[in-house]
Amino acid sequence: MQGVLNVPDDLLPLSDALVAALADAQRVFDGQLHVDLPPVMQLVRHVEHYRGKMLRPTLVALCGMAAHPKAGGTSAAAAGTLVGTTHATLGAVLEMVHMATLVHDDVLDDADVRRRGATVNRLYGNEAAVILGDYLIASAYHLCSTLPPSSTAGHLASLAVGRASMLTCQGELLQLHHRNDLSLDEATYYEIITRKTADLIACACELGARGSGATDAVAADLAAYGRHVGIAFQIQDDLLDLTGSEHVVGKSVQRDASKGKLTLPVIHHLANASAMERGKTLLLLESLGGAGSGVGSGSGVAGGSHGALREAVERTDSIAHAHEAAREHVARAKRSLERAVAESPARRLLQLMADAVVERSF
Amino acid sequence: MQGVLNVPDDLLPLSDALVAALADAQRVFDGQLHVDLPPVMQLVRHVEHYRGKMLRPTLVALCGMAAHPKAGGTSAAAAGTLVGTTHATLGAVLEMVHMATLVHDDVLDDADVRRRGATVNRLYGNEAAVILGDYLIASAYHLCSTLPPSSTAGHLASLAVGRASMLTCQGELLQLHHRNDLSLDEATYYEIITRKTADLIACACELGARGSGATDAVAADLAAYGRHVGIAFQIQDDLLDLTGSEHVVGKSVQRDASKGKLTLPVIHHLANASAMERGKTLLLLESLGGAGSGVGSGSGVAGGSHGALREAVERTDSIAHAHEAAREHVARAKRSLERAVAESPARRLLQLMADAVVERSF
Repeated sequence: MQGVLNVPDDLLPLSDALVAALADAQRVFDGQLHVDLPPVMQLVRHVEHYRGKMLRPTLVALCGMAAHPKAGGTSAAAAGTLVGTTHATLGAVLEMVHMATLVHDDVLDDADVRRRGATVNRLYGNEAAVILGDYLIASAYHLCSTLPPSSTAGHLASLAVGRASMLTCQGELLQLHHRNDLSLDEATYYEIITRKTADLIACACELGARGSGATDAVAADLAAYGRHVGIAFQIQDDLLDLTGSEHVVGKSVQRDASKGKLTLPVIHHLANASAMERGKTLLLLESLGGAGSGVGSGSGVAGGSHGALREAVERTDSIAHAHEAAREHVARAKRSLERAVAESPARRLLQLMADAVVERSF
Repeated sequence: MQGVLNVPDDLLPLSDALVAALADAQRVFDGQLHVDLPPVMQLVRHVEHYRGKMLRPTLVALCGMAAHPKAGGTSAAAAGTLVGTTHATLGAVLEMVHMATLVHDDVLDDADVRRRGATVNRLYGNEAAVILGDYLIASAYHLCSTLPPSSTAGHLASLAVGRASMLTCQGELLQLHHRNDLSLDEATYYEIITRKTADLIACACELGARGSGATDAVAADLAAYGRHVGIAFQIQDDLLDLTGSEHVVGKSVQRDASKGKLTLPVIHHLANASAMERGKTLLLLESLGGAGSGVGSGSGVAGGSHGALREAVERTDSIAHAHEAAREHVARAKRSLERAVAESPARRLLQLMADAVVERSF
């Protein structure tokens, strides 16, 4: 989480331990993707460029440390000794599942750039990218099955990862169904983002805890922490799409409206605007959605309409409403975390991470 | 396998038992795909139209019956009692993995029709089809993880299904890499089809046997049976693409050359033709490959070139060579089968199925 978190001095040794744990997860990740066919290996190595913040392996490791029976009595420097190969494997599995969705998302969005490098579909074509995504999913499940089935974490991991992946796809399909649906309500929005984004993050926290022998209750509370963090994360992502600048966010912004995706501030605005204002915004959304199906970048005329959308949404205080909703989920995440585990360096870092989700501007 | 196999009278009771076992697998399949979101459910139900011969669940059930300790002493009518819910689950898992590849293949091929119905991508768009394929894969793995981890079959199944899915993707990626590669050799062709097609079929046979408590040796021999059947199946598929008529085969034919895919008869031809003839065929292949990337149907000018390709390939006896290779793999499949298990009604049906693979014209 370098660059995102302002880690206080006394937690710096934990931050170092985390970096080592993530390096372990990365080694497992790379080892799993090794293949004996050179042309396939060349393609597979391209996913290295997709590496990002490694949020999911981070949560696996930190929840593993926080849920460990010795969490409270261990110094920040020694916290890394509380997690081992099981956590490295679980972190690699979840990162691989997540990366598969990125590779497929880039095909669906016809995206050319990801993390400042060319996408797989751009370099090798859509066919290679679809199959590569499938390969990452298959590799993730295979890796997950290598955990000893006798261990609780081993058996539960396959079930939980399978279930979370199903939920991710369900959320994406539901979102697709509601594309260009100008009557989308908040309840359905939350249904979509919970499944699409939050449940896999919840799975990372739950399995991290299980890997340290956590009880059902502790695992469930840490899963709830992850779910609320994930919901807040997605709301913030959607806010940045509407209000951020491409330069700061580091990826294309203002794409949601062009893609017919209604997000929380827009939904709130439509529900709270006067009849006249509502009518204007609907016309605006229609013109934005008509601009292209997923490839528009919000420049030119569409750029002007996007500015108008942002102004309209601000007039009903809908951006503040979405910010408040995200902060509320962060608060709920922290309450779940505090119920789940006692005070420890790892718990403090998890609290800081939850706060950082809504403070970030990128 | 109705319509494909000519089942002798004394095996008809086994054929009925098989139909019942496949109905069980189908119920597990449908139950697993049930989802609480109506718009998602509507899309998921579309995969019903993709249902085909159910080759993989058939092999799970028959190998389960053939590898059962009581196989020899059980009548054809009672053979169905040798397999149960484990086999139904394994059959559903493998069918689901296979169906995911069909859904994604149709996106990649831009196909409009599958089994005489419109494809998912045609009806709901490419995005829905890619995510639906991912959903099928996730559901398959989740279902596989519901098998009791304490059972040998349960633990091995997740590993084996993960591994076979990885191999399938590797084969597809290798094939993609060699698209338009006019110097593709037989060894690489076999590498491609073994991973792409045969290894998942081998997995079905292996897990069917494991579900009946087979030893490592028996499971390995039945896997070899499945692998050789799968290789023969793919060679026959490639032959039908070159020599069959769309009317009889039931799907578009003569697409391989248009897609830059060299198959066994063409590879053999290029290796055995005179320098002059080889040059002519290379020009022909180049013109066919240039006709379009995956959407050509072999009509018009390309249709004429396809006729010329078939004639050229026949002049070097390359169709006979490919037929002979397929028959050789059927023979090896049957030898593995006979080494694996003693005589029984299920074993006889497995022998007939292997023969049918190279006798079919559709």
